Amino acid sequence: MILLFQPDNKKCEIEREENLLFGAEKAGVLIDGSCGGAGICGKCKIRVISGTVSPLTEKEKEILTEEELKKGYRLACLTYPVDDLVLELPGTHKGSSRKKDMAALPEGFEPEPLISKIHRKVKRPSMKDQRSDFDRIEDTFEIHNMKIDWELLGGIHGVLDEKRGDVTGVFRGNRLIALEAGDTEDYSYGMAFDIGTTTVVAMLWNLKKAEVLGVTARTNPQSIYGADVISRIQYCNEGENHLANMQQKILDCFRDMIGELCETCQVDPAAIYDITVVGNTTMSHLFLGVHPKSLARTPFAPVFCRSVDVPAKELCLGVNPGANVCFLPNIAGHVGADISAVLLATGLKEKKGANIAIDIGTNGEILLEKDGQLYACSTAAGPAFEGAAIYMGMRAADGAIEKVRIEDGKLYIHTIEDAPPLGICGSGLIDAVAQLLEAGIVLPTGRMLTGEEALETGISPELAGKIVQNDQIPAFVLAERKDGDPIILTQQDIREVQLAKGAIYAGMKTMMKMAGVEIEDLNSIILAGAFGNYIDKKSALKIGLLPDIGEEKIISVGNAAGAGACMALLSKTSRELVKSLVKEVTHVELSVNMDFQEEYMIAMNF
Amino acid sequence: MILLFQPDNKKCEIEREENLLFGAEKAGVLIDGSCGGAGICGKCKIRVISGTVSPLTEKEKEILTEEELKKGYRLACLTYPVDDLVLELPGTHKGSSRKKDMAALPEGFEPEPLISKIHRKVKRPSMKDQRSDFDRIEDTFEIHNMKIDWELLGGIHGVLDEKRGDVTGVFRGNRLIALEAGDTEDYSYGMAFDIGTTTVVAMLWNLKKAEVLGVTARTNPQSIYGADVISRIQYCNEGENHLANMQQKILDCFRDMIGELCETCQVDPAAIYDITVVGNTTMSHLFLGVHPKSLARTPFAPVFCRSVDVPAKELCLGVNPGANVCFLPNIAGHVGADISAVLLATGLKEKKGANIAIDIGTNGEILLEKDGQLYACSTAAGPAFEGAAIYMGMRAADGAIEKVRIEDGKLYIHTIEDAPPLGICGSGLIDAVAQLLEAGIVLPTGRMLTGEEALETGISPELAGKIVQNDQIPAFVLAERKDGDPIILTQQDIREVQLAKGAIYAGMKTMMKMAGVEIEDLNSIILAGAFGNYIDKKSALKIGLLPDIGEEKIISVGNAAGAGACMALLSKTSRELVKSLVKEVTHVELSVNMDFQEEYMIAMNF
Repeated sequence: MILLFQPDNKKCEIEREENLLFGAEKAGVLIDGSCGGAGICGKCKIRVISGTVSPLTEKEKEILTEEELKKGYRLACLTYPVDDLVLELPGTHKGSSRKKDMAALPEGFEPEPLISKIHRKVKRPSMKDQRSDFDRIEDTFEIHNMKIDWELLGGIHGVLDEKRGDVTGVFRGNRLIALEAGDTEDYSYGMAFDIGTTTVVAMLWNLKKAEVLGVTARTNPQSIYGADVISRIQYCNEGENHLANMQQKILDCFRDMIGELCETCQVDPAAIYDITVVGNTTMSHLFLGVHPKSLARTPFAPVFCRSVDVPAKELCLGVNPGANVCFLPNIAGHVGADISAVLLATGLKEKKGANIAIDIGTNGEILLEKDGQLYACSTAAGPAFEGAAIYMGMRAADGAIEKVRIEDGKLYIHTIEDAPPLGICGSGLIDAVAQLLEAGIVLPTGRMLTGEEALETGISPELAGKIVQNDQIPAFVLAERKDGDPIILTQQDIREVQLAKGAIYAGMKTMMKMAGVEIEDLNSIILAGAFGNYIDKKSALKIGLLPDIGEEKIISVGNAAGAGACMALLSKTSRELVKSLVKEVTHVELSVNMDFQEEYMIAMNF
Repeated sequence: MILLFQPDNKKCEIEREENLLFGAEKAGVLIDGSCGGAGICGKCKIRVISGTVSPLTEKEKEILTEEELKKGYRLACLTYPVDDLVLELPGTHKGSSRKKDMAALPEGFEPEPLISKIHRKVKRPSMKDQRSDFDRIEDTFEIHNMKIDWELLGGIHGVLDEKRGDVTGVFRGNRLIALEAGDTEDYSYGMAFDIGTTTVVAMLWNLKKAEVLGVTARTNPQSIYGADVISRIQYCNEGENHLANMQQKILDCFRDMIGELCETCQVDPAAIYDITVVGNTTMSHLFLGVHPKSLARTPFAPVFCRSVDVPAKELCLGVNPGANVCFLPNIAGHVGADISAVLLATGLKEKKGANIAIDIGTNGEILLEKDGQLYACSTAAGPAFEGAAIYMGMRAADGAIEKVRIEDGKLYIHTIEDAPPLGICGSGLIDAVAQLLEAGIVLPTGRMLTGEEALETGISPELAGKIVQNDQIPAFVLAERKDGDPIILTQQDIREVQLAKGAIYAGMKTMMKMAGVEIEDLNSIILAGAFGNYIDKKSALKIGLLPDIGEEKIISVGNAAGAGACMALLSKTSRELVKSLVKEVTHVELSVNMDFQEEYMIAMNF
């Protein structure tokens, strides 16, 4: 069985007879097991996000609270894997599951729901009015050319009978998607999902009030089969049922999040009538069970780009059977619906002059607008800024180093929630590299000095002492973990940052050249993605992740992809708008672009 | 277990340990069991139409041909029921399964299929054309605003790959419902179904050539739960899973017929893209799993009337997953889609003056047209003319008495296929009553003379001798069965005929009064239904089933309901036309109509 531990993003393989505490040790994940695996101390709590584990033991029932049991917590020392697992340590997802991290809906946004609920009294039939139930319903609601899902026919007679014709019709346009006894006009809910390669975010909305009720997030359970889209595509290629497995994993995750939000917010899942989803192009393919193999080889043509509507019941999501799931349109093979949603949410097209929006997630996708003309590209930035591929990287969770400062020859770090340090997350990584550059410990070429070299160049002995040799290559000690292990930033980590930031910067420059935009023409750079909220702009400019247009022109808007999904959920006009916007975008393929290759070589340096 | 034997329409209940030969005896059905149930003679062949039986024995494998085994034949003496069964004796369905019994499509009918197949070459993607597979398909087929079923997305990449972009698109309007590798333009099939209460007829069409390839018929497997719609509705009321069971029975029957026709006509079921269905209102409800209980009690309002489209895959019909099943619109609770199809096929609306179309099946539904105005009613004629409720009644099959003549004091009968007489079918029943009336053996009140009375009134001794006492009531011996049992027409049978023909006649008169039509105004009476092909018009006029407008104005058109279903299958215009025609029909409810009550009392006499 493969275990994937979050937020550390660490994997291991264990046998069925080996418990999760053993797995955590093997993967190098720090779990407190004070009682040595006797199931007494209750400290080795771990949450099962995806996959099947051994049945709950009596001891766990005693130690864990009802709340914890509900959320899927187990004691690692008493739990054994039955299949591949995604596990989460307590304190994860501080970031993306908080309402405040959601991008706000743009000012002046007018909700205009696609779902309408109408309460009416339908006359009973009589020998003078022998019309069918459906005809009387149609007449009562006065919907022209009313349509109905055939499965609904079996139930309408009973619903009419229940309260003597007192019913609420639920309509999507002129289509009756549900009929409910009594007045249920006030209960109308919808959900927006943002499937990130790493994290899936779900938002529950009251459609009538356009009010968000709850937000939750999960590790994308597909992560177990690869941290980035390419490795997941490879996994799909490797076995006949792998594609179906990937689809089931994400659908299971949806069901789980729907269940959680409905329970927390006291909403009947049957009152969820509409769902929008965004994600990158690979996620859109996997979600719909479409093999994404063409995305992993030239010319990277996806199977589809347009938005796809699927009856929720065909995906067995457990919401109202008449609900629709709309996956927003993709732009290209590696510019997905999440970027379409960013385009929608940022209102980029309407901005004056030249502007850039950039979503730094597992990949780095960039949108450029110049006088209403739109360009998009995707850079293979890799998931470095999400902590993957970084030696001691982790996601933004309790204990992640998120800020690093070097002042007067001394090192200061700050962790999320001031928890004991566990690793380093994206914003901490950018900070660390920027500060080491500033201090001269890392050279503009990216090379880290050895301790000796540092002392020679006048670096304080305290800082120089933090430079150690890791596999005979320099590494910088940022902090020490509870177990005594040092948290280090390696030379390789710095190379990863160079590759990632170089790709993003070069991508921007290439598109700008194409559109005839100079750096000084840029009115703004919009940072989309929760990550943008935490990034230190100065550090980002220092390492050359962004062109230097002045800190004040760099705007963080939070999870704009999620915000776009919400806008499309809440407004007919927005949903149509995003469909037409994507058609206007010129996709720039960087992999065969000579300008890009050149810019990349230059941008790799700090 | 309940057994229903066709064509005799006879039921019995036997235990699991009792074989079908025993059941046939118990039900009073004549099966040749020469070897006394030893499984040697092979004469007790019987076809299992619906339900599960004991596994095939070695002896049966020896005796039955491969052809017979395929068709579901078994030896009654070696077969035991596992659940309720519908069984058919060899030689059944001579009538309705013959192509010639189908109503011809009207002259000048222009096929205009809803399905179009287009063969094209889709360009492969390149670094210069990175558009999605779907976008390139859309561009190639030049279909404006092309839509696609989301399930198709998973397959299109593979189909494009198979022959390097050489594909055939299957479209319903602007919706791509299937994509096939290579040129398959010539393979486009559809099916039309007519669900009679008693018999289900299926027709397989080549949609491109508008050519019928095959016709088959089955006993409606729901028959086991009641001969008429009311008893089937009662059955649905009696148990929680009964409705689902009824739906499954008819869907199984569809699958079976699709399988048979595809095999016989060498058609790949995956090349069936369109299906139309007609049937009475109860059949439409049962087919879609909608409880028909409201049809069995005043005010007889159905749950729906309009046409209903269902994806074939949701009914698991085994045809192309993109195929659509369209159940044509009903007119009222007891005037169903079959009558809508008759309205379409007969072109009644366009006829000059006043005209009537009547479908004598298990019920008798009547359409009246006067100067383009349309009226419809349903009479509870009962299934007398289909042999049900008639003492020795049977369906039109080998051995059924179909013609009766009394000439010069002598009785002549004719059976279907000149087979040894087994019972009496509808046309024979009308003939027999007409001839007995003519001969004076039955009085205009419907009373049958006793043998003595007959002799007294000068009836020939030979005929008078055929009047016997059956349960102390007179009955007339028409023939003798092989086993020596007489085939009799009872006093009760004559009462059934009076009730049936009285209801139909009174129905016509009531509608005519409403529309201001006199008998002499009628330009034609169109007999729809296979039964109309066999009816002796003189006899029908003699017994007063039809108003006397002259034999030449009575036109038999065969299975017009089936023809209407075929027209709606083959032509977009016809499918739209039937939807608009039904909206013009004034439904006349006879059960509360005082005129009808009065006319009925009068019309009961001969």
